[in-house]
Amino acid sequence: MNEFEFIKNIKKKYGLERVGDDCAVLPKDGATDLVVTTDLLVEDVDFKLDWTTPEFLGHKALAVSLSDIAAMGAEPKWAMLSIGVPDAIWNSKFLDRFYEGWHELAAFHSVELVGGDVSKTAGKFVIDSIVGGEVPKGLAILRSGAKAGDSIYVTGPLGGSAAGLRLLNEGVRGDIPESDDRFPLLLKQLKPAPRLEFGKLLREGSFATAMIDISDGLSSDLSHISRASGVGATIHANELPFDGQLMNIAGTVDAMLDLALNGGEDFELLFTGDEEKISQSKIDDIFRIGEITANTGVVELIRDGNASLLAPGGFRHF
Amino acid sequence: MNEFEFIKNIKKKYGLERVGDDCAVLPKDGATDLVVTTDLLVEDVDFKLDWTTPEFLGHKALAVSLSDIAAMGAEPKWAMLSIGVPDAIWNSKFLDRFYEGWHELAAFHSVELVGGDVSKTAGKFVIDSIVGGEVPKGLAILRSGAKAGDSIYVTGPLGGSAAGLRLLNEGVRGDIPESDDRFPLLLKQLKPAPRLEFGKLLREGSFATAMIDISDGLSSDLSHISRASGVGATIHANELPFDGQLMNIAGTVDAMLDLALNGGEDFELLFTGDEEKISQSKIDDIFRIGEITANTGVVELIRDGNASLLAPGGFRHF
Repeated sequence: MNEFEFIKNIKKKYGLERVGDDCAVLPKDGATDLVVTTDLLVEDVDFKLDWTTPEFLGHKALAVSLSDIAAMGAEPKWAMLSIGVPDAIWNSKFLDRFYEGWHELAAFHSVELVGGDVSKTAGKFVIDSIVGGEVPKGLAILRSGAKAGDSIYVTGPLGGSAAGLRLLNEGVRGDIPESDDRFPLLLKQLKPAPRLEFGKLLREGSFATAMIDISDGLSSDLSHISRASGVGATIHANELPFDGQLMNIAGTVDAMLDLALNGGEDFELLFTGDEEKISQSKIDDIFRIGEITANTGVVELIRDGNASLLAPGGFRHF
Repeated sequence: MNEFEFIKNIKKKYGLERVGDDCAVLPKDGATDLVVTTDLLVEDVDFKLDWTTPEFLGHKALAVSLSDIAAMGAEPKWAMLSIGVPDAIWNSKFLDRFYEGWHELAAFHSVELVGGDVSKTAGKFVIDSIVGGEVPKGLAILRSGAKAGDSIYVTGPLGGSAAGLRLLNEGVRGDIPESDDRFPLLLKQLKPAPRLEFGKLLREGSFATAMIDISDGLSSDLSHISRASGVGATIHANELPFDGQLMNIAGTVDAMLDLALNGGEDFELLFTGDEEKISQSKIDDIFRIGEITANTGVVELIRDGNASLLAPGGFRHF
């Protein structure tokens, strides 16, 4: 059983209606809904201390939750941060720098730190990031709204974060010159930018029928939308936007496609909507990559004219 | 630097006005405030797996956060649960039983699970518990409202949880008969009851001027109230309520006092208010243990007619 099946079971067993989207949506007042999300980051599973800087890690801890807020078309307002800290980190300047990185991103998006918790750990550093946001009542963009005939879009190039992860695994670190072609890929992995502006524009124009952020990987996240919406999807390999240098890192087209489809953590938004309406919007820099179909549960990849089933292949904890 | 000093520094550095009470208070609608809290529990620091059952652990993970909600005089509404899980736990029935324990307490208090996260850990089991609640606008009971002349109360006997912890350390486990005198002490440590009803009654009657839950230990938590309110406090040893069997476990009066003053995790509410007003209330089973004084920053213990400074002595992570 992987974590998605586990969550599905818990949801069913206890009849949890609000579980299962990027954020939970709760009533706030007559005009506004509250959205809340939590993300747990564990050392040596979700990050490695010698791959990143304390500032980048603080940034990323917040960014992954802001990305969930973006995926609802919401605006972030407040945050909490629970940290479990080993002695070695406590007795260093690490946490000062970690909060500095966290705070820089928070200030940029006007997010207020309102609470948190500090515990010791015997082992690894763990971070739980909690963010609350707001969206006009009833207008949060769910995973469940995709309809057959909708087009499928992403808000930016894919595969860069996974390529950055591969570079880190190969020993490349952030101390390479910023002019190095590989530097932006490291940054995409270590310091991702949540697509809050896109999410807000898409919600304001009612352009998106369904939306999710690409955290697990395009293939998995599209599968989440397909299942939640009760539809199918077709993706065109030749329409996928790739991060620059991705081919150089990957080596082969197969490997490049694998990074883009299954790599995860790009934190771009994946959304569906009416092509004509979206083409008339003022939203630039989005990429149409396929169509929603009535073929319930079937997600296909078209490559060189041949269709194949696209299995959800992104990162699994279990 | 301990964790309280760390939080104080972060709060000051970034001007975080909402940080530092049991919950953060945020505006919800015209009549209601939202309160939110998060508590991180780490295996072998906050709990040991061979001391408890999965059901008790699930219960306690929620109870510690509900206790923070109670300490604001608020009512809990929704919760999230992030868990970092080692393989051995994943591949067992542990989590099913953990959620069962969590859910039983949640259902009792009408708390809805709305989200969460699941990650793997290479090491220990970690749990982050997040709870949101509601309180009438402006009526959350803060730590900062105590005034000289107020009386100091607790909602139940002290030291039981620490005594239970001592028993666990000595090898006693929950499989002793329920009729054993020590059983209630184990339960107080492993399955604490959040005092939501007391919190609500105290808020509805405007009886409490300041309130906190006893998680760190009476001496520490009273120190938190004193500092936040800019007052002093005097506690009378002979007025402290002790858990049954506490003397038997402690062995000496000194040791018993130490458990009650510094043990922590009793999850009773510690509050201040006008004695005459409170004595006319219909709230039973509360214990007057001392007075708030104008002696700013000085917390004293009176024992056998002698006053001594009561240093904050509860549990510290660092």
